[in-house]
Amino acid sequence: MSQQSVRDRLVEIRRDLHRHPEPAWREFYTTARIVEELEGLGVDELHVGRDALAEDERMSVPGDDEIRAWYDDALDAGADPDILERLEGGYTGAVAVVEQGDGPTVALRVDIDGLLREESTDDDHVPAAEGFRSEREGAMHACGHDAHATIGLGVIDAIADTDFEGTLKVFFQPGEEMSAGGKPMAESEHIDDVDYLLAVHVGLDHATGEVIAGLDGFLAVSQLLAEFEGSPAHAGGQPNEGDNAIQAVTTAIQNLYAIPRHEDGATRINAGRIGGGTATNIIADEAFVEAEVRGETTELMEYMKARGTRTVENAAEMHGCEVEITTDSEAPSADSDDPLADLVGDVADGNDDVENVVERATLGGSEDAAYLMRAVQRNGGLAAYVGVGTDHPGGHHTATFDVDEASIPLGIDVLVDAIAEIADRRP
Amino acid sequence: MSQQSVRDRLVEIRRDLHRHPEPAWREFYTTARIVEELEGLGVDELHVGRDALAEDERMSVPGDDEIRAWYDDALDAGADPDILERLEGGYTGAVAVVEQGDGPTVALRVDIDGLLREESTDDDHVPAAEGFRSEREGAMHACGHDAHATIGLGVIDAIADTDFEGTLKVFFQPGEEMSAGGKPMAESEHIDDVDYLLAVHVGLDHATGEVIAGLDGFLAVSQLLAEFEGSPAHAGGQPNEGDNAIQAVTTAIQNLYAIPRHEDGATRINAGRIGGGTATNIIADEAFVEAEVRGETTELMEYMKARGTRTVENAAEMHGCEVEITTDSEAPSADSDDPLADLVGDVADGNDDVENVVERATLGGSEDAAYLMRAVQRNGGLAAYVGVGTDHPGGHHTATFDVDEASIPLGIDVLVDAIAEIADRRP
Amino acid sequence: MSQQSVRDRLVEIRRDLHRHPEPAWREFYTTARIVEELEGLGVDELHVGRDALAEDERMSVPGDDEIRAWYDDALDAGADPDILERLEGGYTGAVAVVEQGDGPTVALRVDIDGLLREESTDDDHVPAAEGFRSEREGAMHACGHDAHATIGLGVIDAIADTDFEGTLKVFFQPGEEMSAGGKPMAESEHIDDVDYLLAVHVGLDHATGEVIAGLDGFLAVSQLLAEFEGSPAHAGGQPNEGDNAIQAVTTAIQNLYAIPRHEDGATRINAGRIGGGTATNIIADEAFVEAEVRGETTELMEYMKARGTRTVENAAEMHGCEVEITTDSEAPSADSDDPLADLVGDVADGNDDVENVVERATLGGSEDAAYLMRAVQRNGGLAAYVGVGTDHPGGHHTATFDVDEASIPLGIDVLVDAIAEIADRRP
Amino acid sequence: MSQQSVRDRLVEIRRDLHRHPEPAWREFYTTARIVEELEGLGVDELHVGRDALAEDERMSVPGDDEIRAWYDDALDAGADPDILERLEGGYTGAVAVVEQGDGPTVALRVDIDGLLREESTDDDHVPAAEGFRSEREGAMHACGHDAHATIGLGVIDAIADTDFEGTLKVFFQPGEEMSAGGKPMAESEHIDDVDYLLAVHVGLDHATGEVIAGLDGFLAVSQLLAEFEGSPAHAGGQPNEGDNAIQAVTTAIQNLYAIPRHEDGATRINAGRIGGGTATNIIADEAFVEAEVRGETTELMEYMKARGTRTVENAAEMHGCEVEITTDSEAPSADSDDPLADLVGDVADGNDDVENVVERATLGGSEDAAYLMRAVQRNGGLAAYVGVGTDHPGGHHTATFDVDEASIPLGIDVLVDAIAEIADRRP
Repeated sequence: MSQQSVRDRLVEIRRDLHRHPEPAWREFYTTARIVEELEGLGVDELHVGRDALAEDERMSVPGDDEIRAWYDDALDAGADPDILERLEGGYTGAVAVVEQGDGPTVALRVDIDGLLREESTDDDHVPAAEGFRSEREGAMHACGHDAHATIGLGVIDAIADTDFEGTLKVFFQPGEEMSAGGKPMAESEHIDDVDYLLAVHVGLDHATGEVIAGLDGFLAVSQLLAEFEGSPAHAGGQPNEGDNAIQAVTTAIQNLYAIPRHEDGATRINAGRIGGGTATNIIADEAFVEAEVRGETTELMEYMKARGTRTVENAAEMHGCEVEITTDSEAPSADSDDPLADLVGDVADGNDDVENVVERATLGGSEDAAYLMRAVQRNGGLAAYVGVGTDHPGGHHTATFDVDEASIPLGIDVLVDAIAEIADRRP
Repeated sequence: MSQQSVRDRLVEIRRDLHRHPEPAWREFYTTARIVEELEGLGVDELHVGRDALAEDERMSVPGDDEIRAWYDDALDAGADPDILERLEGGYTGAVAVVEQGDGPTVALRVDIDGLLREESTDDDHVPAAEGFRSEREGAMHACGHDAHATIGLGVIDAIADTDFEGTLKVFFQPGEEMSAGGKPMAESEHIDDVDYLLAVHVGLDHATGEVIAGLDGFLAVSQLLAEFEGSPAHAGGQPNEGDNAIQAVTTAIQNLYAIPRHEDGATRINAGRIGGGTATNIIADEAFVEAEVRGETTELMEYMKARGTRTVENAAEMHGCEVEITTDSEAPSADSDDPLADLVGDVADGNDDVENVVERATLGGSEDAAYLMRAVQRNGGLAAYVGVGTDHPGGHHTATFDVDEASIPLGIDVLVDAIAEIADRRP
Repeated sequence: MSQQSVRDRLVEIRRDLHRHPEPAWREFYTTARIVEELEGLGVDELHVGRDALAEDERMSVPGDDEIRAWYDDALDAGADPDILERLEGGYTGAVAVVEQGDGPTVALRVDIDGLLREESTDDDHVPAAEGFRSEREGAMHACGHDAHATIGLGVIDAIADTDFEGTLKVFFQPGEEMSAGGKPMAESEHIDDVDYLLAVHVGLDHATGEVIAGLDGFLAVSQLLAEFEGSPAHAGGQPNEGDNAIQAVTTAIQNLYAIPRHEDGATRINAGRIGGGTATNIIADEAFVEAEVRGETTELMEYMKARGTRTVENAAEMHGCEVEITTDSEAPSADSDDPLADLVGDVADGNDDVENVVERATLGGSEDAAYLMRAVQRNGGLAAYVGVGTDHPGGHHTATFDVDEASIPLGIDVLVDAIAEIADRRP
Repeated sequence: MSQQSVRDRLVEIRRDLHRHPEPAWREFYTTARIVEELEGLGVDELHVGRDALAEDERMSVPGDDEIRAWYDDALDAGADPDILERLEGGYTGAVAVVEQGDGPTVALRVDIDGLLREESTDDDHVPAAEGFRSEREGAMHACGHDAHATIGLGVIDAIADTDFEGTLKVFFQPGEEMSAGGKPMAESEHIDDVDYLLAVHVGLDHATGEVIAGLDGFLAVSQLLAEFEGSPAHAGGQPNEGDNAIQAVTTAIQNLYAIPRHEDGATRINAGRIGGGTATNIIADEAFVEAEVRGETTELMEYMKARGTRTVENAAEMHGCEVEITTDSEAPSADSDDPLADLVGDVADGNDDVENVVERATLGGSEDAAYLMRAVQRNGGLAAYVGVGTDHPGGHHTATFDVDEASIPLGIDVLVDAIAEIADRRP
C-alpha cells in the first residue's frame, strides 16, 4: 500500500484514473486501482467483480475479443495482475464495507466508467496541458466518473476520523453510461441491508462551491437496437427484386419521432445511431438503428417502447424486411426522498466552503443509480441523489469536459458529514 | 519476359490476377502484371499510369494512406518495383498499341479492377477449392475483370497471327466499378484517333458459348454523397437544442425514393449506404447517405440528380442542418452502333464454338465504358459493347461469382476475328 | 320581457339555446336571446356586438355568405330583428354590467358558441328524447356553452338578492371553440377596470355536485392553415411535370409530428384536417393541412410554431410548391391565482349541495379565457377558472354530450356566493 | 327524326352534347340524344342501357341520389322521357348495329362521358364565346368525347354510301374517364363476334390534319381508395389516446411514392386525392387517399398494386388504424395490331385532307378501350386505336380544352374508308 494517505493523493489518483478511461465491463485498470487503494485502506469487507454483482443481470456486455483487448491494455498499463484475474470475463466494479459501530447501514454509490469519445488535445484543455490526457485513444472520462471514484475512496478514508456509528458501504459501479451496471448491483445481496443511500454526481452545470441536496426527474430510459434484414438486389438492373432495409429503417425513424406526446408527462425519443448498406448500386439488405425512449415515469417509458416496437415492426413489414429488436439497456425513473435530501441540504448549509445550496433540481436525463435508489426505497429505506458543483469548461460528454479538482475534497467533506449526520438523526 | 506465349498461360494469368483483386486507383499489382506481359509481347507503344490518362479527370480517388497501403501490398506480392514506380500516387491502368499495317484504328477496352467484398471460402467455390482465392482480405474479383484483362492480353497476342491491317489499341481501364476510370481514359489523347471501339464483358447471366453482339441500355449514373451536419444535444435533457442530422437524412431518403417517374424513360434511385450518430442519448450532429441516380438517358439522370439535390437540401434545412453534396462518380448512357454490332454477330455466327448469338440485349445497369463509346461516336466512329457468355455459379458481385475459364479463349477468338473483319469491311 | 323570472326558466332558456347551436361569429340567435333576457333583467349597461369587442381583433371570421346564411336562420327561428341588426356582419356577443354599490369590479366570463358536429338522434340522448335536439343540422352544443350562457343570465338575476357591493360584469363571449372571441373581448375597454375575473366551465369529467376551485394548465395554442400550391400534370403521361402538393403536405405532416420534445415542458402538435387533389390521374396542385401546436407556456407554443413553419416551408420547396401559412387563431396559456381559487374553494365547501371540492386541477387543453385572465392579471387583478361538475353521458365534443340540468342552479349559487365573498374579502 | 341528315348537323350535334357533359353512369342526356339520332338513322339493331352492358361489371357507380339528380337534369334539359326510362339506375351507353351484306364484323368504339371540372368562361374560349359552354356547372367535355360520339353517329350515317360489305357495330361507351365503362361493354355478348375493332381519340397534341394510325403504350391502371379508421382523441388533453388516421395516411403516401421502379418497364403511382379529420384539436379518426397505380403491362400494374396494398396495410397498423382498400376501377394495357394499324395508315395516306400520317405513337396514359381491344384480340381478331388530330387550345382535361370541329368530318372519312377497306382486305 502507498505510504501517503489517500487524502493527500486525491489529485494524483483522479489523474491516474483520468488517463485510463474504460467503458462498461472493461473497467479493468480502474477497478484494479480502486481495489489496490481499498486494500491499502484496510476496509472490513471487499467484494470484487463477480462478488459485487448479480452476474446474470449485466447488460450491454461486449464480445470476448473486445473484453480481452481492454484487459490486456490494463495489464500493459501496470494494473495488478492478481486483482485483474478476479475481473476475468468483464466482471468489473467493487463494493467496499466499513463497519464502525452499531448503527444504520449507509451506502454511497459512485460510478467509475468512461466514455468512447476522443479527448481534446487543445492547450486550453487542462488534462492535455498538464499531461494527464487519456492514454486510451478514442476513450475519455468526459463525465467526471474519475472524480466520482476518487470521492468514493476519499469518503472511506475520511469516515474513520468521524464519530459515525454504523456501517458504510461504497458501491463502485461499472457501466453507468450504458445503463449497464446499476441493475446488477441493485440485484446483488449487497443492497439488501442498506437503510440509506446517497448517490453523487459532479458538475451538471453547477459551479464549484454549489451543492444540490436532492436531484429528481430521472427519466426512465430504454435503449433499443433494431436490426433490419431485407434482400439485396442490383439497384440499376433489378430494383424491384430487393427488400430495402434502408427504406425500412428510414420509415421507422420518421415515425418513431412522431410517436404522440403523452398526457401524463414528459417523454423522449432519439434515434441516435444509424447504419446500413454496402454500396450505392446495391439495394441494402441490412440496416440498423440504435434508439432510446424515455419517460418521466417508468410507465411513460413503457408507452414509448410499445409504440416504438409497433412502429419498427410495421416499417419492416412494409418493406418486406425482417427486424430483430433487442433491448440494450434500461433504467427506471426515481426520486430523491425529501427527508434525506433535506438532511444533505442542512449539512451543506453548515459547511463554510459551500457557497450555495440548491434544495432540489431536475436531472433531465437518465441514471441507472435509479435501480439502487428504488431497491433501497422498496425495502423501506431512503435515497437521495446529490450534486456537487464543479467548474467544467466543456459540457458533459464533450471533448473539453474537465472537473475543477477543488470540488473533490469539498464533495468528500459534505458526504462524510452527511453520512455521520444520517447515523445520528436517522431521518 | 516469360518463355511460354500468353495463349498457353491464359488460365495462369487470370488466376494470378484473381488472387490480387484491387479496387479503383489501387490496381498496382494488376497493372504491373499486365505491363510485364505487354513488355513481353513487344507492343509498339505502351502508355502506363499518368501517360494513359487525362489525369485531372480521375474520380473517387482514395486518400494517400490508402493508396500507399495497396502499393506496399503489391510490392510485397512481388510486383515489379520499376513498373510500380510509374504508378505512384494511384495512377493505374495502361494503353497498349500494336501497329500492323495501313488501316483503321480499332480499339478494345477491358476493365481491370476488383471489388471490396469478401470472397467465399466454400469448397464448392472453385477459386477456394483450387487455391487461387483472393489473397487480399475483403477484396475480390467478383465481376470477371480478371478475365477481361486476360482477354485483352490474349487479343494482342493473337492479332499478330491474323491478316488484320491497321492499328490495334487496347485500353486496360482501372476503376470501372466506381465509374472512376472511364472518363480519364476517354478524355486522354489515346481515344482521338480511334475509328472503332469494342468493349467486352463476360457473363451477365449468359452461358458459355453465347455471344451478345451488342449490348444497349446502359443507364447513365451519378453517385452522390450527402453529408449532413447539425448540432448535438443531450436527447434526454435538451432535445430541443439539437439539430438532428439523422432526422434530416431520413427525411431526405424517404423523399429521394419518391422522386416522380419520368415520361421519357427509365430512371433509378438508390440510397445504398447510410450512417450517422454516436450514441443513443445524443442527438446526432452528423449523418450521411451515399446514393445513386440513373436514367435511360443522360438527361434523365440529370433530372433525377436535380430533384435529388433539391430534396436533400430542403431536408437539411427543414431540420436546421447544413449539407454538403459531392458527386463521387458519374457515367453517361450509351448505345451500341448497329453496323458494328451486326459485324460482331456475323463473326460470332461463323465461329463453331459459339452455340448461340444474341443480336441485342439490354444491360440494365451502368458502365463507364460509355465515356469511351461516346467519345468515339462523337468523333464519327462506331462502338459496340460485346457480351461473352460464361457459366457463373454465383451472380455478379456475390461471394461465389466465378468464370468458366473456357470462355476466355472463346472470347479472344471472337474479338480477334471481329477486329480483323472490321479492318476489312470498314462498317 | 318575460313574466317569469329567469331563475324559474333556467331549463327552458338552456333548452332554447341548445336547439340553436351557432359557431364563431354566427351566434345570432344565441346573442339575440341573451340580450332579450338581459333587457328583461334591466341591467345598468348593455354592450352588444361591435360595442362588446375590439372589433379588429376578431379571428377566424367566416365569409359573408356564410354569415348571412346563419343570420337568416336566426331570423327565421324567431330572433328579435332589432337586436339582430346590431349584430350585422358577424359581431356577436355581449357584455352586461350591474352596478350595486361601492366596491370592486368582479367579472364573470361565459362562452356561448356551439360546435359544427351532428347531434345524436339516439333515444338515450335526452335532447333527442325530450325534443330539444339541435334544429341546425350539423351543429350542436356539445360542450355545454348553452349551460354557460344560462349560468351567466342566472348570476345576473340572482346577484340582486345578495349583499354584494360592487360592480358585476358578465362577458357573454362568442367563438371560444375556435379561440376566436377571447382576444377581441380581452382587448376591449370593458376588461380594463376588472379587479377579479371568474371564468366557468361545466363538466370536464367531473360529476354533478363537484366544484373545481381553480383550473390550471391551459396550454397555449396556435391553429395554422398551410395551403400548398404546386402544378398539375397527368399522372400517367407526364408524372415528372407536376409539382405535387400532396407529396408536399404529407412530407410536412410526417415531420410536424416529429418536432422534438422540449426540455421546458409539455408541447403538442396535431395535423387535424387535411385535403387536396382532384382526381387519381392528376398530380395534385393543391392541398392543405390545418394543424395546431400547443405549449405549456406561450414560449413553448412559439417554439413549436417556429419549428412547424420551417418544416412546412421546406416541405413545400422540396416538392417545388408554394405554401401560404395563416394563423387561424391563437390563445396564450394562463393560470388561476391561488387567493381567488382558495376563496372559491371555501365558498363551495360551505355550500350544502356541493359534495366534493377539488382544490386544483389541470385543464390539459386550451381556452381563450386565458386572454381575459391574463389581461386582468396584467392590470394587477386576480383571475380563476372554476369548474362546475355535471354528469355528462358522452364526452365533450361527442354526439351524445349533454349536461345534467341540476348543475345549472348549483353553479349559479356557488358563483354568486363567490362574487359576494370577493367583494367582502378582497383577496 | 330530324329532317336534315346527320352529316349536315355534325357541329350542331357536337355542340348540343358539349352543353350537357355528364360523368360515368350519368350520361342520360347524352345517351338519349345519341339514341334519338340512331333511331332516326334507322340502324338494324339498337341495344340501349342494360342491354348494351354486362351489367354486373359496372365500376365506380355513384349513389342513387346522385344518379337521380343527373337523371332529372337530363329530363329538364329536354331529353326524351321514353329513352331515359330505359337508362333508369344509371345504365347508360348504347350499341348500334348496321348490317350491310356478307362480310366481317367491324366495330368502332367511341366514348361519350364528360369530366367533373369547371369550363372556362374566357372570351378566347370558343364554347364560351359562341354560346355552347357547359350548362352543367362543374362539369365539362374537356377531353373531346362530345366529338367522339358525333364521329360515331357520322360513321353510321356515312357507311351506307360505301361499298362496305359486312356488319358494323358502334359501341357508344360510357364512363371512360373513370375506367368504368370499358369492362362492362367488353364483357357483354356484343363483343363476341367482332373481327376487327377500331377505337378513336381526337387531339392528343396532334394538329388537325394529322392521323395516328396506331396508338400503343396504354398503361394498365388500377384506381384504389384506401379508407383509414382510427380513434379520435383530444389533441391537447389526451394525445396518446388517439389512433391517428392522418398519420397513417401520410405514412402510406410517403411510402407509396417510394415503391421501387421495376426492371421490366414503366410504372406509375399517384396519390391524387386526400382528405381526413374534422378539427385541429381532434386527432383524426378518419382519413382517405384515392390513388392509382399504372404499369406498362398488366403485370407491372399488378406489381405496383401488391406493393401498394402492403404499404397501406402496414401504415395503418403502425398507427393503430384499420384500413379498407377498394378498387374503384381498373384497366389493362393493350397494343394496336400492326396489320390493322398499317391499313389505317394506308387509307389515311390516300386521303387528300390528311396532311400527315404518324405510323405509331405512344399514349402514355391509360384507356379502358383496352378491355375491348383485348377481348377482340383474345377471340383472334385485330384491334387498333386511331388518333385523329385536332387543334386544341388548352390541354386535355383543362378548362380551355376545345376541338377544331373541322376534324370531325375528317375523322369520319378516314374511319369509314378504313372500315370499308378492312372488309375488302381482311388483314
